[in-house]
This record gives sequence, C-alpha cells and structure tokens, in this order.
Amino acid sequence: MKIVSVQERTVSLGSATANAAISFDSMTASAVVVEVETQRGRFHGLGFSSIGRYGHGGLLRERFIPRLLAASVTDLHDPDSGAFCMQRIWGVLMKDEKEGGHGERSGAVGVLETAIWDAYAKSEGLPLWALLQREFGHSDECGLPAGQTGVYASGGHYHATGDDASRLADEAKRCLDTGYSWFKLKIGGASETMDRKRIEATVAAAGQSRRIAVDANCAFDAPEKRQALAKLDALSLRWIEEPVNPLNYRGLDEVSSALTTAIATGENCFAAADSSNLLLYGGLRADRDILQMDFVLSYGLTEYLRMINMAEATGWSRRNFIPHAGHQAALHACAGLGLGAHETGSAPGPFGGVSACTRIANGIATVSDRPGTGIENKPELLRYFDGMID
Amino acid sequence: MKIVSVQERTVSLGSATANAAISFDSMTASAVVVEVETQRGRFHGLGFSSIGRYGHGGLLRERFIPRLLAASVTDLHDPDSGAFCMQRIWGVLMKDEKEGGHGERSGAVGVLETAIWDAYAKSEGLPLWALLQREFGHSDECGLPAGQTGVYASGGHYHATGDDASRLADEAKRCLDTGYSWFKLKIGGASETMDRKRIEATVAAAGQSRRIAVDANCAFDAPEKRQALAKLDALSLRWIEEPVNPLNYRGLDEVSSALTTAIATGENCFAAADSSNLLLYGGLRADRDILQMDFVLSYGLTEYLRMINMAEATGWSRRNFIPHAGHQAALHACAGLGLGAHETGSAPGPFGGVSACTRIANGIATVSDRPGTGIENKPELLRYFDGMID
Repeated sequence: MKIVSVQERTVSLGSATANAAISFDSMTASAVVVEVETQRGRFHGLGFSSIGRYGHGGLLRERFIPRLLAASVTDLHDPDSGAFCMQRIWGVLMKDEKEGGHGERSGAVGVLETAIWDAYAKSEGLPLWALLQREFGHSDECGLPAGQTGVYASGGHYHATGDDASRLADEAKRCLDTGYSWFKLKIGGASETMDRKRIEATVAAAGQSRRIAVDANCAFDAPEKRQALAKLDALSLRWIEEPVNPLNYRGLDEVSSALTTAIATGENCFAAADSSNLLLYGGLRADRDILQMDFVLSYGLTEYLRMINMAEATGWSRRNFIPHAGHQAALHACAGLGLGAHETGSAPGPFGGVSACTRIANGIATVSDRPGTGIENKPELLRYFDGMID
Repeated sequence: MKIVSVQERTVSLGSATANAAISFDSMTASAVVVEVETQRGRFHGLGFSSIGRYGHGGLLRERFIPRLLAASVTDLHDPDSGAFCMQRIWGVLMKDEKEGGHGERSGAVGVLETAIWDAYAKSEGLPLWALLQREFGHSDECGLPAGQTGVYASGGHYHATGDDASRLADEAKRCLDTGYSWFKLKIGGASETMDRKRIEATVAAAGQSRRIAVDANCAFDAPEKRQALAKLDALSLRWIEEPVNPLNYRGLDEVSSALTTAIATGENCFAAADSSNLLLYGGLRADRDILQMDFVLSYGLTEYLRMINMAEATGWSRRNFIPHAGHQAALHACAGLGLGAHETGSAPGPFGGVSACTRIANGIATVSDRPGTGIENKPELLRYFDGMID
C-alpha cells in the first residue's frame, strides 16, 4: 500500500445544545480523506472526528499528515511478511512524540488512523468489522455473531430554549420504538429536582429503569454532590456515566464503593496508559462497569486494541467496552471485535443513527457487508466530505 | 486591561541532538505576542513555547486566540474589585473545553497565558518575579530572598555525530565554572557501559557526585531495566530524572521504594489533575524528590499555582518544585515564588542560559528589576520574534 494523498477539512458542528460541562455552539470536527494505492487499485479512506473535542486541522497539518506523506512504502509494511501493517503506520505517526500528554494529538492521530483503516478495509473488499474480526478475532461473549452488535441511543441534551420532560419522554420513546436497547440522557446541568423530573419522564416512557442510563459529564465531582448520587443509585438505572472528573481516580474509587448501579466512564481517557491507571486506581468493577474509551479520540484502533488487551489481561471482558460517541468506526469495532454495545446519537447529524445499510431491530444492529466503515452510506455525515472525494 | 492583538509564529528549533526518546531535528515552538492596552499605555507581552512538545500554532489560531480576542473587558476583570484577573483570563481561554485530555492544548494555553503575564508585569512596571511575589507571596524555604533563585545547567545530549565522554566533561566543567550549582546529562539512549562512562566523566569533572544529575527520559520503564537503575542508585547522584513513563505511576512507586537517590519527575504532567495523581500514586517522597511540572506546557501560571497549592496541602514544599525547561517565565517564577531552583540549558539557544541582565554566581541567579520576563534581554531567544513587535 502507498499513501497517495491526505486531505483535512475542519467543519462546524454548531448546535444550540449543552451538557453539564460545555456548550456545543462553537464545536468543530475534522473530516479526513486518505487516498491509498494498492495492487487492487486506488481507494479513499474516510475519517471523521469524534464529538466534543474540536477538529484537529492544525495538528494534522503541522505534524501528522506530513509524517504520513513522508513515509516510504517500507515504513508501512511488516519487514518480515511484507504485509501492510497498521502498527507500523502508528509508529510513523508517533515518531518523535514524547510520552505522556495524551490530549488533542490523540484525536488527530485517531481520526487519521481510522481513515486509513477505512481505506485498508476497502482495499481488502471487506467491511471494517470483518477486517477486524480477521485480524484480531471476534469475542462471542457479547452473545451475538460477528457483524452484529447491541445498540443504544444517546440524547437528552439540555436545550438553550428550555428543557421539558415531555419532549425528553418523546425522544426516549421514539428511540426505543426504533429498536434501540436503551436510552441515555444528560443530567447534572440542571437542578436536582429538574433532573429528577427528566429521569422519571424517560423511565415512564421506557417502562423500566434498566432501559434508561444517565450521563453526568462529571457533575458529581465535588464531595458535597455525593448525596445526590446516592439518591440516583436508588433508581436502579442502566448506568450512571462519568460521575466525577475523568482523572479523579480517587473520587471515582469512592463513588464505585458507594454505588450499586453500574458506572460507565473512560470517554476522556485518551491512551492505554491513562486507561490502565483508570482500572488500577478507579475502583471500577469488572462484573458491571462500562469502559467508554473512544478510539477516534485516542490514537485510533491500534491503541484501542492495546487498551482491550490490557483490560482482558486484568479480568475484564470485551463486553465491558461500549465506546463513546456513535461514529461508524465504533459501530464496526463493536460488530467486529464483539464489544458490549454501540452508542448512537438520537438526533439527526454526524453522530446520530447509523449508516442507511445497517438494520436496527430488537436492540441489535446488523452491519452491512459493504467495504469500509460505511460513511458513504450515511448522508448526514457524508455531506461534510462534499468535494473531497473524486 | 484590554487585549489589542495577538500574534503567533511557529518557528523551527531543529538541532542534530537527541535524548533517549526522541530526535529534535523537526522540533518547533510557538513565539506569541499579546498586545494589551491599559491606563498606563500599550504593552507587548511575549511568550515562547517550552521545548519538546512542538509549537501550537494550529490550536492557538483555531480556538484560543479567537476566544481571547472575543473576550469583553468585563470578562478579564474581577467583578467585585474591578482588578485585572488572570483567573478570569484562564476561564475565558478554557471556555467550552472538556475535562481530561491534558496535552497540546495545555501548551497552547500555557504559552498564551505566560505572554499575558509578561504584558501584565510590564503594565505594572514590575519584573514578573516581583508581580508573582506581590500576588502569591514568596516562600523563604528556598533560603534565598525574592528575586534570587538557585540555578543549574542542563545539557549532555546525545549527538548524531557520536558521543564522547571528554566533550561531556568539558561541558559540565564549563557550566560549573560559570556558576551553575549542578549539571544534568541525558542517559538511557546508549549502552549501559557507554552511559556509565558519560556519568563518570562528568562526576570527575564536577569533583563530586552531588553536582551531577541524570535524565533518563523514561528509559527504565521496563521491569528488566530496574537492575541498571539500582546500579545508578549506588552512585549517589543529585537525582535520577524521569526513570519511567510519566503516567506509569505504579512503576514509579516501585522505583521510588527501591531507590535512595532523589527522583525528579513531572515534566510530562500537564495539569493539576495529573499532578495530583502523580503525588497520590507515584510513591514520591516529599523529603527529597523533585517536581518538574512545566507551566508553559501546562496551562500557564494559573494552573501551576493550583499544583503548588495542592502539593503544599499534602506535605510538600515549594523547594520540591524545580520546573522543567529553562525558559525566562520559569526563571521569574522560581525567583518570585521561592521555588527549589531554575533549570537552564547549557547550550546557546532559546532555552540556554538566562537573560543578559541576570547575574549567575555561586549557584545563584539574581534576576533583574526590568519589567516583564526578560525575553527582550535574551538575544538568542528574541530573534524568533523578529518583526512581531513594533
């Protein structure tokens, strides 16, 4: 394989919604196209940033795209087998990068690396899930065959125009009726009373509390907030997500000890080294808790596999992994590796729903056999690539 | 105070040297100029990236400079006292940034924030050290009055043209003769035998092992390298720096338990949250170990003060803080806050030596009274700002 060209475009995702931590008005993302040439022809690999951490145009142009374009064919292939090698690509991208400091560049490398995976899968004539299954194996612990994954819907943001519980209930009901397994809403950005109303409205719409998860976006970090967390625990929800700041391992350990409800966290851990500390010090429980590391924000699939291997070596299962964000790359990783489930946004947009050729029914997504990650089959995402692909 | 304009220029620092981890051939840095207007007139604040993590032009232009320029005068001042407020500036820069992921943006904010400190100090007619003393107090635990700081020289890189111990010994001797307290060299990038020769040559030149520190740049991370570390421990050097990867707290804890020699680390911890975990889990010893967090890489002085407060609250002293890198901002922070010592590069260049108006003698730097951080008085650094200041 040879890298022919790389393009990046920073696009605006602005929307008048918010979570407990930030507003999304000025949010951006990077759309990346990597053109490769193989003996089978030329292929375009598409990558798109995950949400919440802005685009990475500057870093990509300053460091990572030049390194990729400067790489020789030898740099990209295994010296023994001669096979194209994603670990070698990773080494090219991370050349002369110091250890530690895992933020921003982890997203730049992540979006570029997943674009190359898309091109690689296309060059092999495989959907990414099948390529991942071939290269790393699928775990049947998720209870589904390769090519399928559990899937849930994530929404329930706060709106600048004011929140109302009945709109939230409608959103939850629509998602569950569509075939998603459970629904997740944002909490921590309103009063405790208002959040309680939001949660109760969605639980009523879902019919059972296990079908509702809540995302606190770190709102319970302060020790004086922990009492409110105990009240949430009594509701027996699916999970409570990111109760404390991502690096507050001690706080997470306290919360893990105090709660019966599953905790989901990890979306802001951007490297295997950080994830390892999360498991070492956060008190998380392999029998229930959920690891949400998002590989598009975290140096790509090569680093994600390191995280999975590290976790599996210490008593965790791939079922515990439910990646953050709702991008097509995660959909394929879930279906190809046998992860716990796939998150997808409840609203239309780049992180909403799944590609048109993916079937959703009874809480299960059946991913198509079309080569690549399927960005081409998701019009609301593909529009960001207008004019970038011949 | 009003922000009038902000400029950034990404400059090349390329040099044919290396440490145990990376080559510096393609290294860049950001030169930043912030022009402010106060009742006393207009002032230019200068900032310059710290070394080893590249420039931050993309991030600065994409997010942080626009936020700063969009801030109203109210955003920059304390609502009660009406005084200009760096904490408010910090809030402006970090608006809509998620928790966690402390890399890259921490350097973008750091270089911009220190440029504003430079402008602020100039607008007050004070050297930065005196402004810091006024705002946060100076600790006399370092044994020196405000305006002075201990100072050591850092060099001993590997050279592409081959290393030789006699050149290293000359470098160490020159630095110690100039008046620096001790000399630090790189290790871990050559064979154990070669590194041993390098260390012994410098110890012989210095006359005593306490005047030589070594920087391993994470070379002893693998458990099988720990035996070599035990041999180093027997040499009674000043300190052993960054023996393991910055996020490998468990490995650091093992090393801390095993070594008598002081450990210096923290240059790759870019936020108070990471530094807190370093102290909680790394097994470091407040009676001897050195914390090297570098505030130009770590969201600036505002965040650095949070780190110092956090450490002081848990039994550490400002003497334990010896910031990484050798920039003028660190020189002033050491002299103004009463930190352990200032690091400065042994070779000419942006991180070599100190501003021309700083006196070095008997291991002590006496910083001048000229307003600001003194970049204007360091020609080998100022040249990167050519044409950026009227």
